[in-house]
Amino acid sequence: MARIGCCQLDPVLGDLPGNEARISAAISDAVSAGADVVVLPELATSGYMFADAAEARVAALAEDSPQFARWCALLGDSIAVLGFCELGTDGRLYNSAAVLQSGGVTSVYRKTHLWDREKLIFTSGEQLPPVLETRHGALAVMVCYDLEFAELTRQVAVAGAEMILAPVNWPQFPRPAGEHPGEVITAMSTARLNRLAVAACDRAGVERGQAWTGGTVIVDPDGWIAAEAGPGVGTAVADIDLARTHDKKLTEHVDLLADRRLDLYG
Amino acid sequence: MARIGCCQLDPVLGDLPGNEARISAAISDAVSAGADVVVLPELATSGYMFADAAEARVAALAEDSPQFARWCALLGDSIAVLGFCELGTDGRLYNSAAVLQSGGVTSVYRKTHLWDREKLIFTSGEQLPPVLETRHGALAVMVCYDLEFAELTRQVAVAGAEMILAPVNWPQFPRPAGEHPGEVITAMSTARLNRLAVAACDRAGVERGQAWTGGTVIVDPDGWIAAEAGPGVGTAVADIDLARTHDKKLTEHVDLLADRRLDLYG
Repeated sequence: MARIGCCQLDPVLGDLPGNEARISAAISDAVSAGADVVVLPELATSGYMFADAAEARVAALAEDSPQFARWCALLGDSIAVLGFCELGTDGRLYNSAAVLQSGGVTSVYRKTHLWDREKLIFTSGEQLPPVLETRHGALAVMVCYDLEFAELTRQVAVAGAEMILAPVNWPQFPRPAGEHPGEVITAMSTARLNRLAVAACDRAGVERGQAWTGGTVIVDPDGWIAAEAGPGVGTAVADIDLARTHDKKLTEHVDLLADRRLDLYG
Repeated sequence: MARIGCCQLDPVLGDLPGNEARISAAISDAVSAGADVVVLPELATSGYMFADAAEARVAALAEDSPQFARWCALLGDSIAVLGFCELGTDGRLYNSAAVLQSGGVTSVYRKTHLWDREKLIFTSGEQLPPVLETRHGALAVMVCYDLEFAELTRQVAVAGAEMILAPVNWPQFPRPAGEHPGEVITAMSTARLNRLAVAACDRAGVERGQAWTGGTVIVDPDGWIAAEAGPGVGTAVADIDLARTHDKKLTEHVDLLADRRLDLYG
């Protein structure tokens, strides 16, 4: 059983010190609440709505920026996944997610599916999402639009992921009354088709005219919502039995992965 | 614009004449209501809960069984997709979907992903679902559990399908209050990730102790529910703009198919 905390924040564009403080407070609160795994939004360090690459570059962090050590120091035995605007050692900008543990940054994943104007600012990652064996489970890390590619989500399920952790910034789209956001529907479908958990940490607020969905959600391995953050800044917390994800059999004769027709898909 | 009608029926196990009459009445009613495309449930000719292959064999139809000509005669310019228990010329049983037009059966698809005890009764198909260019759109045909494999649904989207038509028999699973059935959530996600329509025709009733979901749904290319049948026998009807499915761009820089990272998936 792992306790997951998703901290739906409201970063301020370009305000690195303010965002650092918001992230630190959120990590501390989640760890105090017993979260084994803490997820924070995409680009939580910087905000999202950059006018151009030059503006993003000013707000970028390197993997060895001192903020990371300060956040790691808050973690104890917990793990955090944080979306950040990365300045690579190659001088390029990436939309990345860092995996933080008390000893430091243990992994950086660079978003491979860039959304919309991100393509004008960031370089896309060239490595598949990692599946990390940790003390709190086998964790796959993705960023936002990555979740919308079943090719990718299936691949981490086959690789043994028990849970997908995804910093996201979901721009608000219209939807019919009573329906979950489309991205949440896809997260639910992904969970049930692969019997794994999905924790997506969205952001709140409005930034340069862009309203965000505030759709933070933790989905259990059956595809049902275990916790939501609701509107505004807030944290979703859920205890998820990750061991259940090892058994992909729904009935004696149904196995979600073995039933694939790999001979046919070509 | 195509008018889709999904006829949620309540077939009786092994009652071929009774089921033929139910199907005929449903087709006639849907055509009268202006449906261009009529979808009927999985194994609508036979019922589902066979004890064994011998029982299924008694209730099977061949592709040239006379019932098909009688159904086709009801269609006028409309197209129907009907799930049936097929006795192949090879002597094997298949869980199949026939595409019916006024001139006769134009295609038979044999379910490639057999669910649960179907594996003890049917032989799985060895051909991918067809994408048929028809007067009412580019139509892909799947059966039930096939819909749960994104490998397959993506493949027909790439092949140009505007709509997936799926006879289904969804066994009732528990779900949280207020949530759609899991299979509907997956249909919605499939539609929005590929910008195509999905029409799934479920069945109603209880058969040998198995309750069915009655989850018949027509999902538009944005992933929202255009029509449902609701509980019991009934028809869902919706007008869907299939031309919209040709444009996979959500914004200037977002293209649901072009954004795939085929270089990475391996």
